[in-house]
Amino acid sequence: MTDSNLIYGHHPVTEAIRAGKAVEKVYFQQGVRGDLEKEVRHLTKEYGIPLQVVPREKLNKMTKGAHQGVVAYLALVEFLSLEDVLPFIFEQGETPLLVMLDGITDVRNFGAICRSAECAGAHAVIIGQSGSAPANEEAMKASAGALARVRICRVRSLFSTVELLQESGVQVVATALSDRSRPVFQADFTLPTAILMGSEGEGVHTKLLKMADEVVKIPQATDFDSFNVSVATGIVLYEAMRQRLV
Amino acid sequence: MTDSNLIYGHHPVTEAIRAGKAVEKVYFQQGVRGDLEKEVRHLTKEYGIPLQVVPREKLNKMTKGAHQGVVAYLALVEFLSLEDVLPFIFEQGETPLLVMLDGITDVRNFGAICRSAECAGAHAVIIGQSGSAPANEEAMKASAGALARVRICRVRSLFSTVELLQESGVQVVATALSDRSRPVFQADFTLPTAILMGSEGEGVHTKLLKMADEVVKIPQATDFDSFNVSVATGIVLYEAMRQRLV
Repeated sequence: MTDSNLIYGHHPVTEAIRAGKAVEKVYFQQGVRGDLEKEVRHLTKEYGIPLQVVPREKLNKMTKGAHQGVVAYLALVEFLSLEDVLPFIFEQGETPLLVMLDGITDVRNFGAICRSAECAGAHAVIIGQSGSAPANEEAMKASAGALARVRICRVRSLFSTVELLQESGVQVVATALSDRSRPVFQADFTLPTAILMGSEGEGVHTKLLKMADEVVKIPQATDFDSFNVSVATGIVLYEAMRQRLV
Repeated sequence: MTDSNLIYGHHPVTEAIRAGKAVEKVYFQQGVRGDLEKEVRHLTKEYGIPLQVVPREKLNKMTKGAHQGVVAYLALVEFLSLEDVLPFIFEQGETPLLVMLDGITDVRNFGAICRSAECAGAHAVIIGQSGSAPANEEAMKASAGALARVRICRVRSLFSTVELLQESGVQVVATALSDRSRPVFQADFTLPTAILMGSEGEGVHTKLLKMADEVVKIPQATDFDSFNVSVATGIVLYEAMRQRLV
């Protein structure tokens, strides 16, 4: 993240949030209480922006002083609201194809996934407010610029997002290497679909797996570990494209 | 590459090559002539090892002196001969699935491709003697250890390798984003197959494309650039697995 994406001080930060700027993250000074704390906590919660409390020294380093206890990084991209994006897809007469990421914190994987999503014509990439890779310059580079083209929806809760998707007629297809999983090519991707991918270490959250309409796995010919998560996402997106083409 | 993979001096290097050690690359001092030069040029050619002529200072830096004009890096993996591997696959009653890389110099992509190859049960990854990413520690890391498991065949010429494969009854399926390309799912991967992937910048060499039995492309829903080459390789490997499973 470059300094041009950095804003700080009480009014600059709170006004940026109120103006609907895409804020990647807000850093707040440990121990600061009173109106500023209340306002920042309230605004970040309302706008779904990650908030991290840090020592004063960290803010000093970021800004060379004058931060008044609050610093914000602007995102390289605008975050869109899934509530706005979903009806738009249906209005266009298209069958939604979405990618939903649970705990993908690696910036390169996030970028590579956005690249595949753009190639495959996915309508949006959905990420959680916390535990997601930042949409920063490294992600942009790893995405070969796709990050600037694909719609990114940052949501407060993946759980309520799964509910919203299902209520909107979008099936949620999660990937997991469990015995319960069917081969990915047995799922029906011609339906409105959100593909749910978890991190390589943790996989998709158990509760999200239970909520999912389908749990699928990419077949493997050997017992070796697993595909890299960005490769795996590319494969599931390809399978969806293939089914919609043939 | 760590120092433990480094050998230097006339006899240590030439004996390592003669003993069939997997040598990643030989560095030879600019301006050195005579028997040493003849022997090193002859041996590296015979054993298909990349040779680079460099200034004396570069060798000094690598070794802190005493190199006698020649330095070699040992590879982290053994390189196998395709002439040995191919009959072995057929003898096992298996249908060959090979990955052939033309000009993939990015170490991370090479590692990620080896990881996918291992997951998909590819019998070997074939790389050219020159213009290939090194099988070093970074590649090992990017492969999540798969580099130590998948067979790597390093060949002197991709052209004669395509001929060898075809004479052995293995079709060569190249990927290219040209109009001539058929969608990848229209190729028949139940046949013995070598998947030929080119670099993102250059693609597969024109002459290799002409020699290939099939030229395929991964469908894209948008005109955006293309999939990352390691994602693309994963997708083609998946398509081969899918066809062999259903």
